[in-house]
Amino acid sequence: MTRDLVSGGQQIHAPDDLKSLLEEIHQQAMKITEGHVADYIPALAEVDPELCGLTLATLDGEVFNVGDTQEQFSIQSISKIFGLMLAMERLGEDLWDRVKMEPSGQAFNSIVQLEWEKGIPRNPMINAGAIVVSDVLVSRYSASKNAVLSLVRTLCGNDNVYADNIVHQSEKEHGHRNAALAHLMKSFGNIDAEVDELLDHYFWQCALTMSCENLARSFTFLANDGICPFSKKKIMSKRDSQRINALLSTSGMYDQSGEFAFTVGVPAKSGVGGGMIAVVPDFGVICSWSPRLNSYGNSARGMYMVRELANRLGLSVY
Amino acid sequence: MTRDLVSGGQQIHAPDDLKSLLEEIHQQAMKITEGHVADYIPALAEVDPELCGLTLATLDGEVFNVGDTQEQFSIQSISKIFGLMLAMERLGEDLWDRVKMEPSGQAFNSIVQLEWEKGIPRNPMINAGAIVVSDVLVSRYSASKNAVLSLVRTLCGNDNVYADNIVHQSEKEHGHRNAALAHLMKSFGNIDAEVDELLDHYFWQCALTMSCENLARSFTFLANDGICPFSKKKIMSKRDSQRINALLSTSGMYDQSGEFAFTVGVPAKSGVGGGMIAVVPDFGVICSWSPRLNSYGNSARGMYMVRELANRLGLSVY
Amino acid sequence: MTRDLVSGGQQIHAPDDLKSLLEEIHQQAMKITEGHVADYIPALAEVDPELCGLTLATLDGEVFNVGDTQEQFSIQSISKIFGLMLAMERLGEDLWDRVKMEPSGQAFNSIVQLEWEKGIPRNPMINAGAIVVSDVLVSRYSASKNAVLSLVRTLCGNDNVYADNIVHQSEKEHGHRNAALAHLMKSFGNIDAEVDELLDHYFWQCALTMSCENLARSFTFLANDGICPFSKKKIMSKRDSQRINALLSTSGMYDQSGEFAFTVGVPAKSGVGGGMIAVVPDFGVICSWSPRLNSYGNSARGMYMVRELANRLGLSVY
Amino acid sequence: MTRDLVSGGQQIHAPDDLKSLLEEIHQQAMKITEGHVADYIPALAEVDPELCGLTLATLDGEVFNVGDTQEQFSIQSISKIFGLMLAMERLGEDLWDRVKMEPSGQAFNSIVQLEWEKGIPRNPMINAGAIVVSDVLVSRYSASKNAVLSLVRTLCGNDNVYADNIVHQSEKEHGHRNAALAHLMKSFGNIDAEVDELLDHYFWQCALTMSCENLARSFTFLANDGICPFSKKKIMSKRDSQRINALLSTSGMYDQSGEFAFTVGVPAKSGVGGGMIAVVPDFGVICSWSPRLNSYGNSARGMYMVRELANRLGLSVY
Repeated sequence: MTRDLVSGGQQIHAPDDLKSLLEEIHQQAMKITEGHVADYIPALAEVDPELCGLTLATLDGEVFNVGDTQEQFSIQSISKIFGLMLAMERLGEDLWDRVKMEPSGQAFNSIVQLEWEKGIPRNPMINAGAIVVSDVLVSRYSASKNAVLSLVRTLCGNDNVYADNIVHQSEKEHGHRNAALAHLMKSFGNIDAEVDELLDHYFWQCALTMSCENLARSFTFLANDGICPFSKKKIMSKRDSQRINALLSTSGMYDQSGEFAFTVGVPAKSGVGGGMIAVVPDFGVICSWSPRLNSYGNSARGMYMVRELANRLGLSVY
Repeated sequence: MTRDLVSGGQQIHAPDDLKSLLEEIHQQAMKITEGHVADYIPALAEVDPELCGLTLATLDGEVFNVGDTQEQFSIQSISKIFGLMLAMERLGEDLWDRVKMEPSGQAFNSIVQLEWEKGIPRNPMINAGAIVVSDVLVSRYSASKNAVLSLVRTLCGNDNVYADNIVHQSEKEHGHRNAALAHLMKSFGNIDAEVDELLDHYFWQCALTMSCENLARSFTFLANDGICPFSKKKIMSKRDSQRINALLSTSGMYDQSGEFAFTVGVPAKSGVGGGMIAVVPDFGVICSWSPRLNSYGNSARGMYMVRELANRLGLSVY
Repeated sequence: MTRDLVSGGQQIHAPDDLKSLLEEIHQQAMKITEGHVADYIPALAEVDPELCGLTLATLDGEVFNVGDTQEQFSIQSISKIFGLMLAMERLGEDLWDRVKMEPSGQAFNSIVQLEWEKGIPRNPMINAGAIVVSDVLVSRYSASKNAVLSLVRTLCGNDNVYADNIVHQSEKEHGHRNAALAHLMKSFGNIDAEVDELLDHYFWQCALTMSCENLARSFTFLANDGICPFSKKKIMSKRDSQRINALLSTSGMYDQSGEFAFTVGVPAKSGVGGGMIAVVPDFGVICSWSPRLNSYGNSARGMYMVRELANRLGLSVY
Repeated sequence: MTRDLVSGGQQIHAPDDLKSLLEEIHQQAMKITEGHVADYIPALAEVDPELCGLTLATLDGEVFNVGDTQEQFSIQSISKIFGLMLAMERLGEDLWDRVKMEPSGQAFNSIVQLEWEKGIPRNPMINAGAIVVSDVLVSRYSASKNAVLSLVRTLCGNDNVYADNIVHQSEKEHGHRNAALAHLMKSFGNIDAEVDELLDHYFWQCALTMSCENLARSFTFLANDGICPFSKKKIMSKRDSQRINALLSTSGMYDQSGEFAFTVGVPAKSGVGGGMIAVVPDFGVICSWSPRLNSYGNSARGMYMVRELANRLGLSVY
């Protein structure tokens, strides 16, 4: 840990202290019962709402797990980061002609804004932006799903990552709003591939299942200027890693991103499966998961746990 | 300086090195001639477009000035921070029932979004939000202008801060869009005072004139967890200081806030007078000023100088 | 009557038949209790909700009255026609550079659309359009209120028409949305006068009180190619009279205009005071009044009475 | 002719007079060269822009043809009336739960409004509304294209009506905005069929080719209370025929519908192929065609010819 951490006025040094803090916060979180499990597709609606995991992976290579951290869950929008990484690698700066980097100030699936902005999504963390990213992947990679799988497996150091086929198919059947976004962008000339093909990739990517621990490990490079602290591999340049963190800071938490910056103050990304990752530069990555969502689509327990941990340890970057 | 700074791969230790870097960047900036001086009121349009100042005030109490850093200019929207500070002090958490903390994804003076959100502005950095803040000030302070003056003079350690009367009057005459915002919010019940009275305060506040050096000094407390490094006074709690930085990060640079986070990565606020302040936590505050604005309303030279300085010194918080 | 009228398959010739039909319809209408009296200002909220009047003034100079047809009520938006007439007279074709003639597809007081259309209202029957018309009146008439009074008194043949001072003042106090519309248009350069002055005229005009009979008489010229059938005076050209009818057909009944054309099929204008006038070309004018409004702001009983009368007599122009 | 017609102050009785008037107007129209041929698909862009036809079919069974009235052209949006007739027949009043009857105040292909109105289109004359109508046809008719063909052939008394296969395929390839509209409505639950299937019907219907004479004959029943004056067949009830006319009056001419009512004053429907039909109740139907479109998507020459004819003959219904 390269940062000095403070909890309740006292310096926290020992891993034992951190573990106790996580356990205490997890225990408090279990009392929260507000919110609703995502039910727009049956496969998600069936998840046990009481499940709750909290992982902290620090840059010295330690991983603290409390609760259901080995359960596989649908990572949903958290996958947008993986897609973005591959699209940045393939397109470079040209990517930003096709998707902007501004907060949207609208719902994540807004079609109104897309019309105003003539088919150029506000950022890659809203659905429209991630669909453009998927278009890049299916157009520029010979096997776009394999490219994603390979990246994810490398990042988390686990070859056992798959997409859930039932979720994948279910998303396709119910994904008419996303199809509307894709067709609208295609009418503006911002989609190259066939809509069906890119949506297949997009929904597949959303259907990836991972555990808290795997997710936390995957994103530690973002807290470490682009270098994975476990494998010591350089995943991307420091600059690109900071850029992704900037995007997550302004746009990662749906229409609660501003409040999250205000009350927590670290780059983060959530998904409607109930997962959330929070990047603490120079310290590590927190991953929380619990299926019940607040009105913004963020996990109610996850919000509590990450905010509490950040405040107790003084993690805000601001 | 509590941060280690790196420029071009080399550690910068000495003040002389910093001074040279600022001079080099300022010299490059002087070559930029793109953009247009704000001309929506005559008083602003008359400013010499070539003026250009760059100040860096660090937490060890050093102040580096290059170019026109002692010239007084119209701080315009940068004043929104001063207003917000007083409103937070007076209303506490209740303030956030009347103005949110989310990025807007719209022009700073959008009335469309205000209608959708039923008179609750997205954040205090857009005009509608700052007008609500002005309403709080005129309603809760017996002499709201004095309260602002007193705060500003304390922060910059200079009793010679005034509002420019010509700019103030000119804003009032041309401020019909802001009047529309205020009346719309009043129709939704989110304005207590008389519209004319609060707009008088709002326009007066925008008409404050300050120099680069004064502005840089004023906001050092935001880089220092709420404590002014010059006077050692506690201006606000660490938590509130981080919250303001979070707001500036997601919403301080008009509709270029996302790009600014992406390419620079520090909390910042600009004004149509051509000024900009950038807060670097644990390091100091940069203030730039040059009147020609890019299409987003941010100073073209200022953007260059702050971005360059941040990148060369590795100042991004992400 | 220059039209052949059919009721229930039978020709209606005699005035007695018409009178019975109106009485029957009025009686049915009295059973309707849905809807709510406008309560955005106290003065309107106090009206007895049970009042109900129905007048038919035909082109042969006959006037049929049933129910509370001599009661004075606040004509509100029906006054927009009077204002428009004077503005058309004064500005001629130039008026249509400042206000369009297209249906709005939005609420009557929408500010969103006004922003999109850069301060040019969609038509003179929505508030923004009527405010532009009021701007023309206060700018082009030395005494705009007198001009309106004089027109109205001539049209209805009654010198006893006044604005209700309590309603007028009350509208001014609560008219912040209209002030927002006016200021927004002024920011776009589409308002000449001082906003306070033109709003004073606008609210005064809305506060005119008239009876069903007076209103029905006033607008018979619209059913008679511009000539008043009572006084035989030419009020305006046939062309202008048809143009006003066209506007009423597409935009006279708030966001229920399409449904009204669909189910009734004649030019009409309603007001939130519960009044409504319907123009039947070559036949006459119907005026109904009853204070309880449906969700669109049209009188619930009035809608029933006018639709029933139009359907029973086959009055649709289509 | 059951109406008295007036031209230039003089009564027009004889067919010869009418024929001369049409020829004179057609000759004037040929001088108009403004506007652009629709070029969103190649098949439409290739049409000779100079072609120009004008047909008047009166209720006494006479048909006056001037210019290119026997040329087949792509009727495009005029086909929306045929689709609507079949959907009204099949669904009855239930249709109006799925599509409203209000003018849209927006572009014909707006997706913004559709989002606001939660997937319920404003009326059946905009694309979204016609797509819902197509959904009704493919869901409720065993062979929806045959049903349309059969109706059209009966109405115009000509078995030689077909859809242009090249236009049909070309529309499908370029119809991504319409696909976006359909998917968005399906996400709101307002589409039953598969999107591909209903769009195939929709694009096919738009690709029908007809001549001015055939179109004019087809719609005479709308001027005759639902009864075809040629075949004497009852096509629909008087009430339904008036309702369609009402819809055309408020929504038939894209975002120029209000101006059309204002300056012409009869129910009408245009298509981007350059065709237009105008219904004059109790008199007849005008059909014009010329490919160059004004900025609203209406034929420039057609607008001139229909307006001129309506004004010269005093055809306004208002």
